[in-house]
Amino acid sequence: MHEGEEMHEFDRATAVRRRTVDDDGHAVHDVEVDAGWSIGDKPNGGYLLATVARAAADAAAAIEGPDHPHALAATAAYAAPPKPGPAEIRSEVLRRGRGTSQVRARLVQDGAVRVDATLTLGRLRPDATPWWGGAPAPEVPDVPRERRTPADGPGGVHLPIMERVDIRLDPETAGFTVGRPSGAGELRALLRFADGRAPDPLALLYAVDALPPAPFDVGGTAGWVPTMSLTAYVRALPADGPLVVRQRAGLIEAGTVDEVCEVWDGRGRLVAQATQLAGVRTAGPPPA
Amino acid sequence: MHEGEEMHEFDRATAVRRRTVDDDGHAVHDVEVDAGWSIGDKPNGGYLLATVARAAADAAAAIEGPDHPHALAATAAYAAPPKPGPAEIRSEVLRRGRGTSQVRARLVQDGAVRVDATLTLGRLRPDATPWWGGAPAPEVPDVPRERRTPADGPGGVHLPIMERVDIRLDPETAGFTVGRPSGAGELRALLRFADGRAPDPLALLYAVDALPPAPFDVGGTAGWVPTMSLTAYVRALPADGPLVVRQRAGLIEAGTVDEVCEVWDGRGRLVAQATQLAGVRTAGPPPA
Repeated sequence: MHEGEEMHEFDRATAVRRRTVDDDGHAVHDVEVDAGWSIGDKPNGGYLLATVARAAADAAAAIEGPDHPHALAATAAYAAPPKPGPAEIRSEVLRRGRGTSQVRARLVQDGAVRVDATLTLGRLRPDATPWWGGAPAPEVPDVPRERRTPADGPGGVHLPIMERVDIRLDPETAGFTVGRPSGAGELRALLRFADGRAPDPLALLYAVDALPPAPFDVGGTAGWVPTMSLTAYVRALPADGPLVVRQRAGLIEAGTVDEVCEVWDGRGRLVAQATQLAGVRTAGPPPA
Repeated sequence: MHEGEEMHEFDRATAVRRRTVDDDGHAVHDVEVDAGWSIGDKPNGGYLLATVARAAADAAAAIEGPDHPHALAATAAYAAPPKPGPAEIRSEVLRRGRGTSQVRARLVQDGAVRVDATLTLGRLRPDATPWWGGAPAPEVPDVPRERRTPADGPGGVHLPIMERVDIRLDPETAGFTVGRPSGAGELRALLRFADGRAPDPLALLYAVDALPPAPFDVGGTAGWVPTMSLTAYVRALPADGPLVVRQRAGLIEAGTVDEVCEVWDGRGRLVAQATQLAGVRTAGPPPA
């Protein structure tokens, strides 16, 4: 941040303040869970993961060693949703390596663990290029601004997060919003921060959990799809421009669903991947 | 186990002995890291995850509440490989819910964290059926026993684990063993325990990390592919019979690769899924 530069909403919402750190790499950070990054009254899981990652990287940076500012791999188990307001993040640096460091970090509120995360930190380099593989970016049309996902969700649920992030679903995958899911279990969208903040590795931890649940495009499910565990891999520094995000449902069985998310940057480079296991309620038989 | 029944090798190797547990769900288990489940001198990551999961489930069971014997989701960060011999697993039950519980557990040896895991536990039911989705099982031919992966690995590396598990690669994906990778980055195999132990949810945590690294079928990489972080989802109770395992490489960039693993049971049902982020050394340009 340079003087006079305005802080973006995502950075304000994920800000951490170091309270204590010791030589063993145990740190405590104060955070303020922001009501603005919620679906209904539940803070978004990717937003919480990004906040925890920010604290974890700061804890690692407080110890002598190589500079590992980016979460390369991060898994969060969601024990219970925190409420908006003060919380703390307790980090423990498990290993400081040459190429990577590993940190465990948890968000605690009212004495109870809300999010428990394990992170592998490293440094992504601007000159890195893909060597092999990586799914190509799907074509997602840039629909007009009026078609961005509104903050007034279905069934009267308020989605304050949609005031802060501009998600424009590919019309081909937006049928569920008018009661006509395609049945494919796949959502695609362009994602931007509403205030113009550029994407970076921290933002990718949010982006992998930003879309509506992919089972909404299957049909036949009821209610919300709460994430139990989210794993994100950040593979490259994203270029400027809107992110392309694809979220796909895998197997729905016994009240759980796995979802796979991929994120490409403005150059069409695969920059993040994620899987999550979530709870899902099925209503009657599966759609034909 | 019934009296007179022989204990299988996998159960012996993953055995945990509860040392202490308190009402808050903090438990310590003694374990013996088994030299027989190694690649060279490094214990297999899936074997370690299964051992940690066994301790975590026992820690949860020690507290009053619903019965959650199975790891539904488990992520392990591998900080440093443990040596064969005594170690301890320290568990902490984060949440005891109606349908699921969450536990953090770590394997510690010589005072240092070797594996740090986060687990979501629940109970898989024998009458569960897939409701939607799930990739169909690939056809993997059952090649003769003589073609199982030998314990004498390439470059003189000893693979003691291959004396305990019977892995028969689909010949179509076994070209890398004779220096002719297909370039597709995909391995498929049938997997059985050599001593006839039946698959169960615990065994699936091992199965998702049992195959050789999928980059071996890409070509152009050098040396081992050490797992940094492994995430497994166990989706159903596996039926008897050999497991079908498919391991695929995703993106190779900047010294890391993501791999996706899927496991089907003898009925062809998808029973486990996993992703991992691993380190990889590339030698020269990618294969054409």
